Amino acid sequence: MSDDLQAGGAPARRGFASDNSSTIHPDVLASIARANVGHVFGYGHDDLTRGVEARFRDHFGDQARAYPVWGGTAANVLSLRAACRPWEAAICAETAHLNVDECGAPESIAGVKLLTAQTKHGKLTTGLVEGLIKGIGDEHAVQPRVVSISQCTELGTVYSPEEVSDLAQLAHGCGLLLHVDGARLSNAAAALDLPLRALTTDAGVDLLSFGGTKNGLLGAEAVVFLEPSLTGGFEYLRKQSLQLASKMRFLAAQLDALLADGLWLRSAAHANAMAGRLAERVRCLEGLELTRPVQTNAVFATLPPAAVQALQEQFDFYVWDERRSEVRWMCSWDTTEDDVDQFGAAVESAL
Amino acid sequence: MSDDLQAGGAPARRGFASDNSSTIHPDVLASIARANVGHVFGYGHDDLTRGVEARFRDHFGDQARAYPVWGGTAANVLSLRAACRPWEAAICAETAHLNVDECGAPESIAGVKLLTAQTKHGKLTTGLVEGLIKGIGDEHAVQPRVVSISQCTELGTVYSPEEVSDLAQLAHGCGLLLHVDGARLSNAAAALDLPLRALTTDAGVDLLSFGGTKNGLLGAEAVVFLEPSLTGGFEYLRKQSLQLASKMRFLAAQLDALLADGLWLRSAAHANAMAGRLAERVRCLEGLELTRPVQTNAVFATLPPAAVQALQEQFDFYVWDERRSEVRWMCSWDTTEDDVDQFGAAVESAL
Amino acid sequence: MSDDLQAGGAPARRGFASDNSSTIHPDVLASIARANVGHVFGYGHDDLTRGVEARFRDHFGDQARAYPVWGGTAANVLSLRAACRPWEAAICAETAHLNVDECGAPESIAGVKLLTAQTKHGKLTTGLVEGLIKGIGDEHAVQPRVVSISQCTELGTVYSPEEVSDLAQLAHGCGLLLHVDGARLSNAAAALDLPLRALTTDAGVDLLSFGGTKNGLLGAEAVVFLEPSLTGGFEYLRKQSLQLASKMRFLAAQLDALLADGLWLRSAAHANAMAGRLAERVRCLEGLELTRPVQTNAVFATLPPAAVQALQEQFDFYVWDERRSEVRWMCSWDTTEDDVDQFGAAVESAL
Amino acid sequence: MSDDLQAGGAPARRGFASDNSSTIHPDVLASIARANVGHVFGYGHDDLTRGVEARFRDHFGDQARAYPVWGGTAANVLSLRAACRPWEAAICAETAHLNVDECGAPESIAGVKLLTAQTKHGKLTTGLVEGLIKGIGDEHAVQPRVVSISQCTELGTVYSPEEVSDLAQLAHGCGLLLHVDGARLSNAAAALDLPLRALTTDAGVDLLSFGGTKNGLLGAEAVVFLEPSLTGGFEYLRKQSLQLASKMRFLAAQLDALLADGLWLRSAAHANAMAGRLAERVRCLEGLELTRPVQTNAVFATLPPAAVQALQEQFDFYVWDERRSEVRWMCSWDTTEDDVDQFGAAVESAL
Repeated sequence: MSDDLQAGGAPARRGFASDNSSTIHPDVLASIARANVGHVFGYGHDDLTRGVEARFRDHFGDQARAYPVWGGTAANVLSLRAACRPWEAAICAETAHLNVDECGAPESIAGVKLLTAQTKHGKLTTGLVEGLIKGIGDEHAVQPRVVSISQCTELGTVYSPEEVSDLAQLAHGCGLLLHVDGARLSNAAAALDLPLRALTTDAGVDLLSFGGTKNGLLGAEAVVFLEPSLTGGFEYLRKQSLQLASKMRFLAAQLDALLADGLWLRSAAHANAMAGRLAERVRCLEGLELTRPVQTNAVFATLPPAAVQALQEQFDFYVWDERRSEVRWMCSWDTTEDDVDQFGAAVESAL
Repeated sequence: MSDDLQAGGAPARRGFASDNSSTIHPDVLASIARANVGHVFGYGHDDLTRGVEARFRDHFGDQARAYPVWGGTAANVLSLRAACRPWEAAICAETAHLNVDECGAPESIAGVKLLTAQTKHGKLTTGLVEGLIKGIGDEHAVQPRVVSISQCTELGTVYSPEEVSDLAQLAHGCGLLLHVDGARLSNAAAALDLPLRALTTDAGVDLLSFGGTKNGLLGAEAVVFLEPSLTGGFEYLRKQSLQLASKMRFLAAQLDALLADGLWLRSAAHANAMAGRLAERVRCLEGLELTRPVQTNAVFATLPPAAVQALQEQFDFYVWDERRSEVRWMCSWDTTEDDVDQFGAAVESAL
Repeated sequence: MSDDLQAGGAPARRGFASDNSSTIHPDVLASIARANVGHVFGYGHDDLTRGVEARFRDHFGDQARAYPVWGGTAANVLSLRAACRPWEAAICAETAHLNVDECGAPESIAGVKLLTAQTKHGKLTTGLVEGLIKGIGDEHAVQPRVVSISQCTELGTVYSPEEVSDLAQLAHGCGLLLHVDGARLSNAAAALDLPLRALTTDAGVDLLSFGGTKNGLLGAEAVVFLEPSLTGGFEYLRKQSLQLASKMRFLAAQLDALLADGLWLRSAAHANAMAGRLAERVRCLEGLELTRPVQTNAVFATLPPAAVQALQEQFDFYVWDERRSEVRWMCSWDTTEDDVDQFGAAVESAL
Repeated sequence: MSDDLQAGGAPARRGFASDNSSTIHPDVLASIARANVGHVFGYGHDDLTRGVEARFRDHFGDQARAYPVWGGTAANVLSLRAACRPWEAAICAETAHLNVDECGAPESIAGVKLLTAQTKHGKLTTGLVEGLIKGIGDEHAVQPRVVSISQCTELGTVYSPEEVSDLAQLAHGCGLLLHVDGARLSNAAAALDLPLRALTTDAGVDLLSFGGTKNGLLGAEAVVFLEPSLTGGFEYLRKQSLQLASKMRFLAAQLDALLADGLWLRSAAHANAMAGRLAERVRCLEGLELTRPVQTNAVFATLPPAAVQALQEQFDFYVWDERRSEVRWMCSWDTTEDDVDQFGAAVESAL
């Protein structure tokens, strides 16, 4: 079947709804197929999973301990379960995926209260975090244990390694841990032109939700501990939290393809480049305003509701903030220059 | 690469450890590849997922509502979360996967106490269930809400439709629901030579964990509500319980391949046949005793520890009960007659 | 022993730390003593408890259903457990006891996420609540189910019956419930010179944490359902949530004394009057500013840190906001005019 | 009012339903009244509470750390929350209060799975415990962390110090803790004629639910840590678990009266003696059989249903096992010889 036809024969739809609207990278599918031979023990007791654990150590340092899971919400919630005792809390941005997109799983599944700050473009600062570290030693108050940042943020912005490091130092100084929701960590690394460990291990990050699905996988993420003392009992937590894949080798195969020879970087850099191309295409259009720095693979803009409606008839994307008619356009590893150019022209014409 | 070489070139290992040690059926991989075109909305808001929902209605009746999830433990725990309020309990066999293989997720994640009965070969009876329905109206006691049976059981045995129906009637008469852990429901249906709905919908089952992974999928199961009044809010529960796949189309593609043209039945019947062949091969060997009726794709046997050890050097499988030297040998869709024959010979030689 | 000597003989300390620093009203102790005769069934299956249930109906209307519990945090958390399914959320003020003083119990024990608004003096408004009712029908977002207000608020302010009614109408119009944290409901009723039901039942409140401990009891509160359809299973929830007193008659005896002949009102009105007297005494002092309307039994003020420190050497009270040197002075049923006058003089002298 | 009239003037009812059907000991009420002077900080930050902590150290050794709570279910559930991480389990008798009388709180509130054994007269043995310590290191299985015994048991039987010590050694050898549900620990100590620490600290117990309510208090129990390393964060757990009394001094006053000068022992010994007297009175009656060793304050017996019914018209008590017409008769600190003799005569006459 041709690559640009959907099953059934309709022309494949293109859009900017999310990077999880995208396809599986062919190298990833090929890796799954290669792993599809013979009988191996389930639940990660296989060579391929052991190999992926080594790949994570290559990228994040010898002390890194990686545990593949199915989903990103799961990686975040498991990070909280691993880090927090029942009376401990996590500090995050009001816009964090943890806070707005996980249907209360941090509270209901991990039992962890979130302490949130309003931010500029989704980024916590040391000042904001300091304002939320309070009530220490007061038995009536939850005790902050984790600072969680999204890298890149849900608004497409990135933290510099210095910013991460400052947050880590603040956290550690107060006996807290620094967690990174890295559902799009590869996009941040590509944007900063830095290896993964420069943003994480070297900057003092303690644990990490590493994203793969939004970067061309079928469905695989990992909880990565950079502070290995946190892993005690984590194999039980993963199982109990409904995230232990029985045919683990096929999660490993995906992550292996991503991490083995730079696919993570090529795919993320391409997605970022497409967002940059789109931003450049529309930046000067009358009636449209870019509302966030375009640093990774997201473009946020305000444009008139009528234009939004006209565009949504042709292309899928989300309205981010109905009130101010702000939209989000996500690019992904499989967004093409052609996609961007056609969409850019449609935006211009809708305005 | 040849089908009988592992990645890396070593000859592919064969074994009887579990049906989740098996590979993905090629038709399933092909279905994933066919779905891998174009941009679609995530989280199940796509045509392929809607199509799979219809497939489940074909098999289980018009009132069936199916929600794909990643794993079998998740399907079980989500079933409990959907059915039970905080003070309600589930009745199951002491050997149920819920009770022994989910690391306390029913209790810790669903908050549901299990009331268990010792059984013969893993099957609840109406008498056993009646003995556990007590303390009704006593505020100090959990209130039974669900009877959960495994079909087939963890010991490879099956419930007849009449047995299921009797349990359903008992449950409904007491205001309880009947849940089926159907991680291997296809194997039971194949064994009984009955359509899926004869064992479930038609027998009065209210909700169901439908298994796919053990029957040739990469990783996809479903919670299927046959009593649709139970679905209220389930989309939130699934998301909150870490089981909403962002690239849902690829779970749908797997389930679609399984359900579309009888693959579920062919694969399960083959696995059952291989277990039958193995049982016949070893039944009369001196020093070996089959310990459970071989009704589906599992063979349970006792044999001397020395023989177990010798066999495990060549083939992977689990010791089920160390104390009595009972082993479990699982066959799967990809077990070959050759596998069985070689293993049978090895058993004979080990004895 | 004289009333103004502590056990041990030291003169009894007086202070303004909290209304739970106060003593048990003698009528309440006498009621406990009167109940201390004979053998009765535990857990509320006694005449005295049934009598108290009737007293609540006298005050709140025939449809009211009251369940005594030990503590106020428990009454709040049990209210949430009764009202919310796992994916549902509660809206409250950022300053609500639920949010800041219950050590994460709403999240960890009830599994309920709180959606909070910054308020003026602790009071939610319809506008603030409207801003938090969002994401309806979005499976990624918790679904608001309860609006919870504190009456009086943690800052001593009161909602008028019209304000409560407006919030109830908004809530009901969106399918939500209105809960009142009434740890100090009596103080609010006294301040407004209205019967309890005017602030609750008649204003559309659905459920209520009714406070007694801060108003002269040893330790007894109640969850009161004004919308009786919410009580299903609540007897199990109370037991499971560790709040079913075995010797319930002694909780009932306390609540009976409070509700029988207006003790609730006399005690609360006195506490309010003492706060009013204190506010008048200090209002014009140089260097001190009252920071909140003094409507019930709390006085909030800013004064120089040195003055705070000098005062705390003589009298117990809490610094509310270290940053701005804001203190809270609580009066209670047993605060005397003499206490207020001595303290007022001490404040003047400390400034 | 005369001691033998209920409020209202009816003659006070006497019965054998439970030791929590009994009254408050007058010394305890007097202690509450003595504490009812002056303003003190709430939540246990008062001298009386500090004094009670010292009393517990007197009885259990210098390393003991006691935290008063309201109820016995709470003391048990808090013990589990303190001892177990989410994947850890508790071993107990099938008849344990934890398992049958707490409405699923161990599972729903503490998230802890119970692993239960059928016992003779409610007592775990080392053999039974060994049979439940399994699946160690298997990520699919909960990991046993606590052995919990009831002393005395729910069936009135006692563990000798040697039996406790053997269980402690077994537990410690496997990395587990030994918890005692001591709702009636005083009755056990009285029965064995041993100080409290001989049954607990000296026998290797790690943590303890210490009961007071059934022994003459209004409502106060304590979680007592004998292994002080377990207390980390417990003040938060107690608050979050809805068990931090604001007017803590009145719980302390109760426990102080109990522990100060041997009231615990006198009351428990009396209750035991009354049960012994009752057992002697009925032991030889035709048609009645004592079904459990009468070691503390409970008498279990079978007698014909018609006799049970006739007796229940005069005296309150519970049928323990409907099936075999087994009843439980509990004596308490305030059971009189006259009560026993009248009841004994009634039993004889009913038979």
